[in-house]
Amino acid sequence: MISKEKDFQEFFPVWNKLTAGQQEQLEHAVRYEHAKKGTIIHNGSLDCVGVLLIHSGQLRAYMISEEGREITLFRLFERDLCLFSASCMMPNIQFDTIIETEKDTDFWLIPPNVYKSVMEASAALANYTNEILSSRFSDVMWLMEQIIWKSFDKRLAEFLIQESAIEKTNHLKITHEKIANHMGTAREVVTRMLRYFQNEGWIRLSRGTIELIHPEKLTALTEN
Amino acid sequence: MISKEKDFQEFFPVWNKLTAGQQEQLEHAVRYEHAKKGTIIHNGSLDCVGVLLIHSGQLRAYMISEEGREITLFRLFERDLCLFSASCMMPNIQFDTIIETEKDTDFWLIPPNVYKSVMEASAALANYTNEILSSRFSDVMWLMEQIIWKSFDKRLAEFLIQESAIEKTNHLKITHEKIANHMGTAREVVTRMLRYFQNEGWIRLSRGTIELIHPEKLTALTEN
Repeated sequence: MISKEKDFQEFFPVWNKLTAGQQEQLEHAVRYEHAKKGTIIHNGSLDCVGVLLIHSGQLRAYMISEEGREITLFRLFERDLCLFSASCMMPNIQFDTIIETEKDTDFWLIPPNVYKSVMEASAALANYTNEILSSRFSDVMWLMEQIIWKSFDKRLAEFLIQESAIEKTNHLKITHEKIANHMGTAREVVTRMLRYFQNEGWIRLSRGTIELIHPEKLTALTEN
Repeated sequence: MISKEKDFQEFFPVWNKLTAGQQEQLEHAVRYEHAKKGTIIHNGSLDCVGVLLIHSGQLRAYMISEEGREITLFRLFERDLCLFSASCMMPNIQFDTIIETEKDTDFWLIPPNVYKSVMEASAALANYTNEILSSRFSDVMWLMEQIIWKSFDKRLAEFLIQESAIEKTNHLKITHEKIANHMGTAREVVTRMLRYFQNEGWIRLSRGTIELIHPEKLTALTEN
């Protein structure tokens, strides 16, 4: 049987740089949780569940327009720390994100006030938090550059390649609607471009799946 | 005469929370500098001049596409701390920004290794750095939302109002080219929309200036 407590110490990034008191504070407050695929864990400024440390699974952070259109900001995987689900502890974070499980996910939940109190006393945790924030910032800057400067065919090709790397398969089980939600566009736009890729012979479309027949062609397109 | 040393202590955000040793380390390393309007202070990953603390003046942070198209990410003013000019001290910042003076600017320059060394030991400075990073992150998220979900007429109206607030005048001395560089678009697109605003009677265009005649109409447009 896995010891979740021992795992927590091993998974928590700067554990050995914390004082015994800080370690105790975290261990005392942390909860081990499970969420089924498709669960909304955090919904914008409506809640502030806490910092998530992922044991296994996959999260998606996205934003949503007033008209309900979505765009994926970044994904989080095993060992990643999710800060935006505790944005109330960071008053300067003035944007709303939604955090959803893309796979069944096991995680530790650290209450925002506890994480904040340790971070305020520990330079190690504060600096580590900085690094995470910088990484997420870089993710979003990358996305913005794609949106502003890149054409949609390249973005879609890049998305398919990324998705295939994450799922470790060339048979993607994903709807056009879902892709549109990742990319901040309309379903019709996605369908049109996928059909173009199919006509080129790079992918094969069937109900609910996209098969990458020539992923190297898609890669070449993104590098153009 | 102004004592720049005394001012530095007053301007530096968490001065009183630093140890005497950390204060000495900063004071010993900091340099007071002046840059004329239009100076490129930091140019992407090519350099890493250090953290800037603005005494007076105005900076603009922008990014640039491979084709040379610009877009403004955020502006910095008096008392702001500019981190991205020291991005080498933050390995997870994996995007390039360019920092340029928009007005004659006086600032303190803190070498990246000195700032980093104090930040690694001081929870107060690390947490403050977090707050700055969060603010800049929020600026960029705001911009991205504008770009993805908002139409160009609203963005341009918003830009004119913002510009008028910064410059404290309804007579903006700015070329269409410059606006295009702020907004990540082409000059023709800006000119076309400005002419539309002029036809509506909201602004008056003349060589090198834009007069906001009915700023409240522009505000109303952004709120639509």
